[in-house]
Amino acid sequence: MPLSPEQKAEIEASRGQTAQTLRVVSPGMEAHLYTAHEVLDHGFVRVIDYMGDDSAICQAARVSYGKGTKSVQNDEGLIRYLMRHWHSTPFEMCEIKLHVKLPVFVARQWIRHRTANVNEYSARYSIMDREFYIPAPENIAAQSVVNNQGRGEVLEGEEAARVLEILKTDSGRAYDNYEAMISQDGQQGLARELARMNLPANIYTQWYWKVDLHNLFHFLRLRADAHAQYEIRVYAEAIAAVVADWVPFAYKAFEDYRMGGATLSATAMECVRRMLKGETVTQETSGMSKGEWREFEGVLRG
Amino acid sequence: MPLSPEQKAEIEASRGQTAQTLRVVSPGMEAHLYTAHEVLDHGFVRVIDYMGDDSAICQAARVSYGKGTKSVQNDEGLIRYLMRHWHSTPFEMCEIKLHVKLPVFVARQWIRHRTANVNEYSARYSIMDREFYIPAPENIAAQSVVNNQGRGEVLEGEEAARVLEILKTDSGRAYDNYEAMISQDGQQGLARELARMNLPANIYTQWYWKVDLHNLFHFLRLRADAHAQYEIRVYAEAIAAVVADWVPFAYKAFEDYRMGGATLSATAMECVRRMLKGETVTQETSGMSKGEWREFEGVLRG
Amino acid sequence: MPLSPEQKAEIEASRGQTAQTLRVVSPGMEAHLYTAHEVLDHGFVRVIDYMGDDSAICQAARVSYGKGTKSVQNDEGLIRYLMRHWHSTPFEMCEIKLHVKLPVFVARQWIRHRTANVNEYSARYSIMDREFYIPAPENIAAQSVVNNQGRGEVLEGEEAARVLEILKTDSGRAYDNYEAMISQDGQQGLARELARMNLPANIYTQWYWKVDLHNLFHFLRLRADAHAQYEIRVYAEAIAAVVADWVPFAYKAFEDYRMGGATLSATAMECVRRMLKGETVTQETSGMSKGEWREFEGVLRG
Amino acid sequence: MPLSPEQKAEIEASRGQTAQTLRVVSPGMEAHLYTAHEVLDHGFVRVIDYMGDDSAICQAARVSYGKGTKSVQNDEGLIRYLMRHWHSTPFEMCEIKLHVKLPVFVARQWIRHRTANVNEYSARYSIMDREFYIPAPENIAAQSVVNNQGRGEVLEGEEAARVLEILKTDSGRAYDNYEAMISQDGQQGLARELARMNLPANIYTQWYWKVDLHNLFHFLRLRADAHAQYEIRVYAEAIAAVVADWVPFAYKAFEDYRMGGATLSATAMECVRRMLKGETVTQETSGMSKGEWREFEGVLRG
Repeated sequence: MPLSPEQKAEIEASRGQTAQTLRVVSPGMEAHLYTAHEVLDHGFVRVIDYMGDDSAICQAARVSYGKGTKSVQNDEGLIRYLMRHWHSTPFEMCEIKLHVKLPVFVARQWIRHRTANVNEYSARYSIMDREFYIPAPENIAAQSVVNNQGRGEVLEGEEAARVLEILKTDSGRAYDNYEAMISQDGQQGLARELARMNLPANIYTQWYWKVDLHNLFHFLRLRADAHAQYEIRVYAEAIAAVVADWVPFAYKAFEDYRMGGATLSATAMECVRRMLKGETVTQETSGMSKGEWREFEGVLRG
Repeated sequence: MPLSPEQKAEIEASRGQTAQTLRVVSPGMEAHLYTAHEVLDHGFVRVIDYMGDDSAICQAARVSYGKGTKSVQNDEGLIRYLMRHWHSTPFEMCEIKLHVKLPVFVARQWIRHRTANVNEYSARYSIMDREFYIPAPENIAAQSVVNNQGRGEVLEGEEAARVLEILKTDSGRAYDNYEAMISQDGQQGLARELARMNLPANIYTQWYWKVDLHNLFHFLRLRADAHAQYEIRVYAEAIAAVVADWVPFAYKAFEDYRMGGATLSATAMECVRRMLKGETVTQETSGMSKGEWREFEGVLRG
Repeated sequence: MPLSPEQKAEIEASRGQTAQTLRVVSPGMEAHLYTAHEVLDHGFVRVIDYMGDDSAICQAARVSYGKGTKSVQNDEGLIRYLMRHWHSTPFEMCEIKLHVKLPVFVARQWIRHRTANVNEYSARYSIMDREFYIPAPENIAAQSVVNNQGRGEVLEGEEAARVLEILKTDSGRAYDNYEAMISQDGQQGLARELARMNLPANIYTQWYWKVDLHNLFHFLRLRADAHAQYEIRVYAEAIAAVVADWVPFAYKAFEDYRMGGATLSATAMECVRRMLKGETVTQETSGMSKGEWREFEGVLRG
Repeated sequence: MPLSPEQKAEIEASRGQTAQTLRVVSPGMEAHLYTAHEVLDHGFVRVIDYMGDDSAICQAARVSYGKGTKSVQNDEGLIRYLMRHWHSTPFEMCEIKLHVKLPVFVARQWIRHRTANVNEYSARYSIMDREFYIPAPENIAAQSVVNNQGRGEVLEGEEAARVLEILKTDSGRAYDNYEAMISQDGQQGLARELARMNLPANIYTQWYWKVDLHNLFHFLRLRADAHAQYEIRVYAEAIAAVVADWVPFAYKAFEDYRMGGATLSATAMECVRRMLKGETVTQETSGMSKGEWREFEGVLRG
C-alpha cells in the first residue's frame, strides 16, 4: 500500500486548490498533478510541479518575446529538428519536480544521474517506515548466463519460494531490531543515524527529484531501456508516460530519435553500405568483434 | 529603447492570457510575469516562468505529501534554519526563467556561472540589432588606484566627452561595416558567423536564462555585491527585486545571512574575541596582512 | 582488515614504478600515492592520482606561460587573496583521484556531492565481500536530545552490547542468506542485482572518486565539520591530512578562511558592533531567535 | 605570431624541468607538454597538465587495486565495450588542462560547454594585447544558401578584399581608441573594465581550460564536426590530435563509435531494414520529412 489514508487525503486536498496563473500551462500535465502513479509494491511517482510545455521549447530556441507559439506545425518541425541535431539547451528550458517513493537499491542507481536536484527523506532525522520491496514471483530471476550484469530466466518454484522467504524474514527481523535499538523504552535509545545501518537495501525511501527535460530524456534513454534493471525501469516507464502527456511533440521526437533509434559505429555503417550494394557480410568480414556483431545483428532485426 | 512597439504588443498579449493551474502560485511573482524591467540604456530583465514559492522550499525539505504549508511562522523559521546551516537542496527546488537583454561584455561575465540553462540569440543564424551600450556620464569612471580590477572616480568633463564620442563613433562605424559586409546587394554577402567578429563588446545580445534559487542566490551574492562591475550589478539588483516578491522569506534570510552577513577568518574571529575582552588590537598584533586588516576594519565599521 | 595480502602486494608493486614526467610534481603528495590510509574498521582512502599543486593555482590565476611559480611569498599571498575573495576557478585547476572503501550508508551521504566523478564497484556485476562496519564501543551513541539529526552520549554497557550483538548477527545472517540465494550449487542462483537487496547499509562498498580542489574544499568544510556524522567525518579528516601535504598554502588558507572561520549574519554583525561599543546585548535585544543566539554565543566563545 | 620570444623562452624552460613521479605517465602526452600547437593566425593550444591514460580508464572501470593494466588486448576491448554502451564515468577519470589563445567570438561558443573549469585572462584587471583574428582569404566565405547558420562559397576577389580591409581597419582603430581611452598620459584614464567594451569580437583572449575526457569527447564530437564553424573546428582538430597520442585506444573507439558513427532514428532504421529486404524506399514512402531524408541519404553515402 503505497499511501496511507491520511496521505491520500492530503494529496486530494491539494488537487482541490486551483489558482489563476499567467504562466504557460500544459493541460496534459495538469491532469497528473497531485496524482500518485503506483510503482512496484509500495512505491509511487507523483508530479509536484512543472515548468513549460512544447511551446516553451520553441520560445527559448527562438529567444522570442511572446509566449512562443507561432503555429503548431512549425513547433513540431522545430522540435524534431532540434532533437535530430542534438540541440540540448531548448529542452533544458522545461523542468519537472517529482515525489518518488522507491527502494534504496533503486535510489542508489538513480542518484548516479547528477544533473538533478534531490531532497531525500533523512534517516538521520526521521524514523524509516516498515516498508520493503518484495518482488512478485515473476520478477525473481536467475543470474543471466550471457550478461554479467543482468538477470536471466525466472526462478523455478521451490527456489523462488526460498528467496521470497529469505527476503521477507530478513527484512522483518532487520526492522524489528532497528526498532528495538532506537526504542527509548527502558534504555537510552541508539541514535537514528547509527540504527539505520541495520536496514537492508530493499527498504523504501522517498525523495523530491527535480530535473530539466533534456537531462530527464537522458535518464529515460538509459533507464527505460531493455538493459536497465527491471526495478528502475518501471519507474522510468511511469515517468515516460507522464512526459508523453506533458510535452507530446518533444516526447514523440525523443521516441523516434533516441529510444527507438540506433547509433551505428563507422564500421557498422560501412557494413550497411556493403550490404545495400548486395554484398553478404559476415562477422569475419565485418571488422567487428563477436560481441559487436551480435549487437549489430540485433539492431538490423529491430 | 529596450523594446519595439511590436515587442511590447506581443508581451502585452501574453499578459492577457491567464489559465487555471493546480501548481503552487506566487502572487508576488505573477505581477512580474511578462513585464520588462528596464536596465541600462537598452537592456531589460523579464520573468518568463517560475516554479515554486516559499512553501515549496519547506515542502521539499520535509519531503511532504501535500502542498507543504504547515503554518507561515513555521515556514519562515525553517527557511532561516536551512539558510543558516548551508542547506542548499531545498532552495534548488524553486526555479526561474528570465529573458535578458544585455551588452556582450556583461554576458561574458554572466555566463561564467555555469549552473544555469541558457539559450542565446544566435549571431550565426540571425542579424544583430544596431543597439550598443553607451554609459551615462556618471558611469564613465577612471581606473581605480587601489583596486586593479575596478573603477575609481568619475571622469572629468572633457575626457568623459572624448570617451563617449569614441564609443558612439566606433560602435556606429562597426555596425555600418557589419551591414556592408553581410549585404547581398550587388555582392555575395559575407557569412553572418564571420561578419559578427567586427562588432564590439558593447553591442546588446539577449538570452533566455533559467536557474534554480540556490544558484541564483550565489549569482546575486557575487554580482549584486559592491565589488561587482556596475553594468552587471544593475541586472543583479533588478533580479533581486523580483526575487524579493517571489519568495519573501527566502529572500529576507538571504539578505540577513548572505548579502548583509560577513565571513570572518579564524584569525579575524580571534581578534574579535580579544577586542571583546577589552584588548586593543592593531594590524601589527592581529596576525593579518595589511590588505586583510583593511577589509576587517571595513566589516567592523559595517 | 581493510586490505588482503594480495591487494597489499599489488599496491606495493605500483609504488615501485616511478617514471619521468614534465608535469608539475607535488613531493608531499607523491609520498601518499599508492598508500592506503585506514579508516573505520575495514575502510581506507588511497590517492590514485593528482594534478597540480600550489603553483598550479597561481599559474591558472595568472594565465601564465611558464610553470607558474614566481616566488613562494607571492604565491602564498595570491592564494590567500583568492580564497578570501571567493575566487573558485583557480582552485578548480587542481584535481585528485581517490580509491575509497566505505560503508554504504556513508556512501549514500557522500554521493550527494554531485560535482565529482565516481566509479563504484558494481553489485549487479560482482559479488560483494563479507565486510561490515561494526562501530567501536565508544562510537555507539544515543540519539541527541538537542539535535534531531545527531547523536548524544555514548550508550551504557549493556545497551551497547545489545546493539553490537544485533549489528553483528544481522549482518552475518544477511550475508549468509545473500550467498545462499546467489549460489548455483544445486539451484539456478538468484541474479546478483536482486540478491544485493538483502544486504544492510553497513556493508562496505568501494569507489574511485575524482574531484577538483575547490569542490573538495566544499566537501571537507561540510563533512570534516563537527556536525557531520562521525562515520563520514573520519574519511574527511583522512583526506584533509592528505590535502595539507599536497597544496600546503591552499590548505592553510582553507583552514583560516573556511574551516576555522565563521559566517555572521547582518544581525549578528550588528550585535558585535554594539558589543564592541560596550553595550551588553542579550538574546532578547539581539534580534535573533533563541537557536541563532545559542549558535552566536558558541562562535564568540570559539 | 602566437608567441613572443620571452614566452617561447619561458615555455622552453618549463620543458627542461623533468621530475620523478609515481603517477601513471602517458609517453605520447609527455611529448605534447609545454609545446604550443599554433591555430589560426595568432592562436595556440598548449597542454599544461594531464591525469591518466588508457589504463586509468580500465583501472577505474574495474575499481582495481593496482595501476590497472591487466593486458593490452583486454584494455582495448574493455574501452571499446564501455564506449559502445555509453558508460561515461570511466572516461571521466582522465583529465586534461590546456592553455588556449583564441578569438573572443570563438571563446563565446566554446564556453557554452559548461562541464569544464576555466580561468580566463581578465580584461578588467589587465590590458588586452593588440592581436586580432583576420581570416585567410580562403576562409572568407558567403552566407550559406542552404543552411541558415553556416557559410557557403568563398567570396570572390574584390568583395573579399573589401572584407579584409574592413576587418583590419576597424580592429586597428578600435584598439587605437582603446589605448587612447585607458592612457593615463595627461588624463585620468578610463577604467579597463569599461574601455574593453570598444574591442571587437575578433580580438584574441586566452584561458586555462580543464576538462575530463568524457566531456572533452562530447566537445570534440560537436566542434570537430563538419557543421561546426571553421574557426572553432581548427581548435577542436588540434586538440583531437593531442588526444589521439594521449589515450590511443579511447580515441580510436571514439572515432569509430562517435565521430565516424551515425545515429539513425527509428524511422530511418525501419527504412534500412526495408532496403536490405530489397525494397526501393523513397522520401515519399520513408515517413521522413525532406530535410531528414536528405540527411539520411548523406549518411548512407558515407
